[in-house]
Amino acid sequence: MTDIEIAQNTKMDKIVHVAAQVGLNEDDIEQYGSYKAKIKLPLKTTKATKRKLILVTSINPTPAGEGKSTVSVGLGDALRKLNKNAMIALREPSLGPVMGMKGGATGGGYAQVVPMEDINLHFTGDMHALTTANNTLAALIDNHIQQGNALGIDQRRIVWKRVLDINDRALRNIVIGLGGPMQGVPREDGFDITVASELMAILCLSENLHDLKARINRIVIGYTTDRQPVTVQDLQVGGAIATLLKDAIKPNLVQTLAHTPAIVHGGPFANIAHGCNSVLATQTAMDLADYTVTEAGFGADLGAEKFLDIKAPVLGKTPDTIVIVATVKALKLNGGQALKDLDIEDLKALESGIVNLTHHIKSMAQYGIPVVVAINRYTQDTEREISYIKEVCEKIGVQAIDTDVWAKGGDGALDLAQAVVKSVEEPANFKPLYSNDAEITEKIQTIVTKIYGGAHVEYSKKARNQLKRFKKNGWDKLPVCMAKTQYSLSDDPKKLGEPHDFTIHVKSLIPKLGAGFIVAMTGNVLTMPGLPKHPAALDIDISDDGKISGLF
Amino acid sequence: MTDIEIAQNTKMDKIVHVAAQVGLNEDDIEQYGSYKAKIKLPLKTTKATKRKLILVTSINPTPAGEGKSTVSVGLGDALRKLNKNAMIALREPSLGPVMGMKGGATGGGYAQVVPMEDINLHFTGDMHALTTANNTLAALIDNHIQQGNALGIDQRRIVWKRVLDINDRALRNIVIGLGGPMQGVPREDGFDITVASELMAILCLSENLHDLKARINRIVIGYTTDRQPVTVQDLQVGGAIATLLKDAIKPNLVQTLAHTPAIVHGGPFANIAHGCNSVLATQTAMDLADYTVTEAGFGADLGAEKFLDIKAPVLGKTPDTIVIVATVKALKLNGGQALKDLDIEDLKALESGIVNLTHHIKSMAQYGIPVVVAINRYTQDTEREISYIKEVCEKIGVQAIDTDVWAKGGDGALDLAQAVVKSVEEPANFKPLYSNDAEITEKIQTIVTKIYGGAHVEYSKKARNQLKRFKKNGWDKLPVCMAKTQYSLSDDPKKLGEPHDFTIHVKSLIPKLGAGFIVAMTGNVLTMPGLPKHPAALDIDISDDGKISGLF
Repeated sequence: MTDIEIAQNTKMDKIVHVAAQVGLNEDDIEQYGSYKAKIKLPLKTTKATKRKLILVTSINPTPAGEGKSTVSVGLGDALRKLNKNAMIALREPSLGPVMGMKGGATGGGYAQVVPMEDINLHFTGDMHALTTANNTLAALIDNHIQQGNALGIDQRRIVWKRVLDINDRALRNIVIGLGGPMQGVPREDGFDITVASELMAILCLSENLHDLKARINRIVIGYTTDRQPVTVQDLQVGGAIATLLKDAIKPNLVQTLAHTPAIVHGGPFANIAHGCNSVLATQTAMDLADYTVTEAGFGADLGAEKFLDIKAPVLGKTPDTIVIVATVKALKLNGGQALKDLDIEDLKALESGIVNLTHHIKSMAQYGIPVVVAINRYTQDTEREISYIKEVCEKIGVQAIDTDVWAKGGDGALDLAQAVVKSVEEPANFKPLYSNDAEITEKIQTIVTKIYGGAHVEYSKKARNQLKRFKKNGWDKLPVCMAKTQYSLSDDPKKLGEPHDFTIHVKSLIPKLGAGFIVAMTGNVLTMPGLPKHPAALDIDISDDGKISGLF
Repeated sequence: MTDIEIAQNTKMDKIVHVAAQVGLNEDDIEQYGSYKAKIKLPLKTTKATKRKLILVTSINPTPAGEGKSTVSVGLGDALRKLNKNAMIALREPSLGPVMGMKGGATGGGYAQVVPMEDINLHFTGDMHALTTANNTLAALIDNHIQQGNALGIDQRRIVWKRVLDINDRALRNIVIGLGGPMQGVPREDGFDITVASELMAILCLSENLHDLKARINRIVIGYTTDRQPVTVQDLQVGGAIATLLKDAIKPNLVQTLAHTPAIVHGGPFANIAHGCNSVLATQTAMDLADYTVTEAGFGADLGAEKFLDIKAPVLGKTPDTIVIVATVKALKLNGGQALKDLDIEDLKALESGIVNLTHHIKSMAQYGIPVVVAINRYTQDTEREISYIKEVCEKIGVQAIDTDVWAKGGDGALDLAQAVVKSVEEPANFKPLYSNDAEITEKIQTIVTKIYGGAHVEYSKKARNQLKRFKKNGWDKLPVCMAKTQYSLSDDPKKLGEPHDFTIHVKSLIPKLGAGFIVAMTGNVLTMPGLPKHPAALDIDISDDGKISGLF
């Protein structure tokens, strides 16, 4: 059966019953249909006694897939099976890619969050609220210029782009304001996909409505002709933009196929942003459940590093255990086996590719947090391959546990759950990677050396000039958000495994003052995807009685 | 108190209780928070025994305001006060203008539908679903061209534009696809506001999901290089686009300040589209309530004509009574009194402007439906002015009734409700304005003569050429949707009152095959509004505990 068939064949619990499992009554939630809800904040009471946080991350992703969301869901279900008060806190998927490539972002097989069609389509409207807020701000900027430009905004230096939650390459580079003096001021512009908007990063880092508005007001939308930053505060529209996000800021409650309560909320890019679900979602789960399983985007070098260095300080809580997901196939691909041959046992490729896993184990261990490895099993994996991974991990003092969540759901992760329950009780001794007071360049060097295993950082002329201006603007000690390829520890997507002695090339820096970090661009990041030759939209259909097919 | 203050000071009923008033239980609706819901279709049972339909329309609108939604809400509340099983079915407002001009589209004073902030902002996401569906189709068109253009679409003749629910003049005329061969094919394009999308008209005319998909498949998105129409069916994406509208098609249930159940669903433009709420909304209200009060956009010459000639045939039901709303101020403005002097009694101006009202009464009477006039009272209106309107109406056999709904809610429309209850029992004898078999030109001439009171129709060269091509395409007998200024019966917005012997100038025709009509353009219709010098966004704010201010 396909993912959508498995999901459609499972009877969901009413969301009020799911909420009741974690002590939320009908008045504590806002229902969106019978199977989705928003959780009203602040919570009236908190139910958790333990507040243990488990961060699920992975080796560098490969085209073979690693299944981080699937393992997160399976682990949450398994913890419930062990009678633990557990919740899952995942990222919210973007709609655009759903019309392009088959495959959603809600787990897979018997480890899914549901209703998967809704979560992958409009869900509770968070993406649409972000799109509207982002584009309302854009319209207000162009209107400000059209109506006399009192702030002296340089129309060549507007950095606030428009967004749509659609894969639409034709909108990447456009010219707007054509048609004469009544139709605006002509200028170059472009659309990003909604999840790339700074507003998404802001939503995910905001502690409440007050903080949300303050962050929005700090957004730099462009520069004046004499290169001074212009903020939303200067435009005096922070209140209106925050108003448009009043519901989007509330965490969404859904369930897994096994009825485990899951919060699915917020999903910023893991390259130009921090790649984690919202602080409010994770906080709410920790307030309601003893064990919160959450995930971060891409591999540990991107998502987990940002969780620990950017999100955790806002959350005020570091993980009690980090689970690193690996698959036999992905490790063999890292070791040089061809994509088409991954079904064949190849211990040599595994041996040569496992360095990617051990690298991530060591880099995470630097934070002083216990690490557990989850091997996400495929039917074609052999016992010898699985055993080899376990042995290698054991040698460096880490438990690697076989899981089979796609086929078995929570039953496929009981061993992992038991290991995690033990692991979170180990005394943690969190050591931050860098000091807040360090300069941007020092922070970047630290990440490159300690997390990527690289040697040098090279700055382009543009980046060096930007660093000088940032110093003038007082932005030189902000946290750093690295925008790097997810496929390699280096900035070259072809260097798999564990490259050494490489140089990271910082081409430019993007200040995201609302999110509160500086993005370091180490390559070209596509912020507006395109559609493929045969888009998934060609196969998607809905029956007369509303049943969706072809989505996954 | 302002509208928003009145609304915020009223305690709403839970939507489950509102639903229960019309026999819907919790399983018949999908809650969106505690005060909004979507009604699941098809209904399991119908409750209505009478199914009387009351259409609220008005004289030509003026800057003085006429208050059609406010009277509709007040009338619904008054019918409930008379212990009638009544419901209201209104159009759904667009978010874009809310950020521009103060003032919403949810009635006013003590005759409002609530929660007004939500209804005017994201509501249940219908507009966002339409935006997404519209722009997904646009992305699929450009992707089709980028990937080889198998259908041979002429990129200069794509008529499917992108949309946003934002007032953004800078997007009216744009160039997309810039940046080289990997970034799409450059071409001229533009954004309309979402309510102007043909998908909105389609959503409002669809009888069910099956019909929705069939209509979407009939949309003409452009032409080939040899001028053959290209449809959504040709692109094979009708199923995907319909999937994106699976929830938007369901009617939204809210309440008035007096807790009268109100359906607020669908809101197409009343010029380039038919300006009525959805067929499914009106049908659902008629299935649940004995008396359904609904409205149509702009004056009777646009909204009501289209309700009767375009919507009613799909609905399978014509109104049992038409209520025409007029105000003393608007009639005086039609009679030549200056906008700034409208607070001053001026019987001479009233006498000269009342011809606008009597014209609409007579034009509606041609359909064989009883007419009642509602005078929407302002504090400054004098008794002599009110009496004069009543007398003139009485002379032509129509009752004109004084209402005061802004200040008194339903109590201000009890007389109107009583008149309506009597009127709907009168034997109706519906006479269609034109025959379905008539050619487009004959239909236009009939509307101009019988509804506008004009003499001639003049076609531009472009329109005459289009008529020839439409004949070849088999489109020559579709219903006609007139796009005309709302301010005058003629196509010149300055000709107030009751102009005579005028000519209507058809400049071009737009085929809307999905909606099922041909739009006749008689002037420039702005399909993407702009923001004013002081946009409302500057005054909108939200408090730390989520209370919105400055919205209205």
